[in-house]
Amino acid sequence: MVLPWRTVDTRARRWRSGHDSRSLQRAPGSQPPVQPRRHPQRPSGDDRPSEIHVSWEATTVSMSDDPHWRVRARKSELHRPPWLEVLRESIELPDGRVIDDFYSVQMQDFGVVAAFTDKREVVVERLYRHGPNRLTWSLPAGYVQEGESPLEATVRELREETGYEAGEWIPVGSFVVDGNRGCGWCHCYVARGARQVQEPKSDDLAEVEVSLVPWARLIELLAAGEITELASAATIGLACTRLGPQVSI
Amino acid sequence: MVLPWRTVDTRARRWRSGHDSRSLQRAPGSQPPVQPRRHPQRPSGDDRPSEIHVSWEATTVSMSDDPHWRVRARKSELHRPPWLEVLRESIELPDGRVIDDFYSVQMQDFGVVAAFTDKREVVVERLYRHGPNRLTWSLPAGYVQEGESPLEATVRELREETGYEAGEWIPVGSFVVDGNRGCGWCHCYVARGARQVQEPKSDDLAEVEVSLVPWARLIELLAAGEITELASAATIGLACTRLGPQVSI
Repeated sequence: MVLPWRTVDTRARRWRSGHDSRSLQRAPGSQPPVQPRRHPQRPSGDDRPSEIHVSWEATTVSMSDDPHWRVRARKSELHRPPWLEVLRESIELPDGRVIDDFYSVQMQDFGVVAAFTDKREVVVERLYRHGPNRLTWSLPAGYVQEGESPLEATVRELREETGYEAGEWIPVGSFVVDGNRGCGWCHCYVARGARQVQEPKSDDLAEVEVSLVPWARLIELLAAGEITELASAATIGLACTRLGPQVSI
Repeated sequence: MVLPWRTVDTRARRWRSGHDSRSLQRAPGSQPPVQPRRHPQRPSGDDRPSEIHVSWEATTVSMSDDPHWRVRARKSELHRPPWLEVLRESIELPDGRVIDDFYSVQMQDFGVVAAFTDKREVVVERLYRHGPNRLTWSLPAGYVQEGESPLEATVRELREETGYEAGEWIPVGSFVVDGNRGCGWCHCYVARGARQVQEPKSDDLAEVEVSLVPWARLIELLAAGEITELASAATIGLACTRLGPQVSI
């Protein structure tokens, strides 16, 4: 039985193993390619999700109804290229309600990488970051420049900031930085075979100290509150979902 | 030998096991409390990091020098309470350079939780999110309201959005959403013993479908690109660093 999305019971549904959606039929441990992300500020007919079926008890729920918000109007309230733009949107919800002052923030997309050496150490940085307003441990990261792919940008930033290159790059996910307002996309990578090929020559505003930290130590730094940026935390966590806390790489 | 932070070699330092900083002397697997985070937009003398020693080869490096940026002036360029405020800052770097147009963004802090039932399932939501501009799987999350602690807010949001409560709450980290600009803090939790106690009664703009998803399936959804928000990805990853991909809870 196929039910439209909005008529199903709101009680929690249980997922039955063996009755998963197509995207879940991968063998555990396999590495599916990351699906291309759409830009959060580019609504169009293409943004509609494809139909996904999820089993729940004996019921299959169709998610084909369109729950998208319709943007009725959009006004730029602050534009400071290339750094950010704040948009005030008039939104029509699927139930007909209108929200006249929803704020979205466009910011630059960036990439971040957990780059492993052959000795299972991760290339990390220690630097001042103005967001958390403190000295912090951080994974190499940087903005995607015009004409670059996210992967190209992250490869470049790793080399510039740390002097390291890596032989194998694995995309482990792309995520909008803020689920409500956008704030750009974060492209996360795990890289293997990292080795130093040059001295760092970053033009970052902050001085960067580069270290090699064993994977288990990095997990401990994360647990100790010494990693303060969401993108670094997410990328370490994503590496963990692929590699486990006791990485064998 | 103690060297000041800025005079050390920029070549990657190797961490010797057994010579770690105090914060790393925890037994593997122990759960240190999350350190309180400072607000990114509240620079003060208190924000200076405490001295941390990191061993490298036979050398101990002191990080006691202050790498903080000094905010010379700050001007509000856009203020839309309670949603966001954009600040233009004039920054003086430690090397004396001045940046006159650094933009910081103040946004609301929020909490997010990976809540496990006793059957090792996680309480997840499927809903439209305007940031990624798509239907997405997401962990329960919500803004910290005036007078609430982040934990209180997240407990409340879990109950309102999903109808679930949990017996045990473990803070697994607090992170600034954007390392450069701030954009609020994300407080991440893992909860255990989740059980439904009421019907959901969220006042969110988006319709929310609540599901229980086995931990291994949630990892697969993440790998398949079906989780699109950085905060959800980070919290699942943080749970993984504590619990492993094959959770035993």
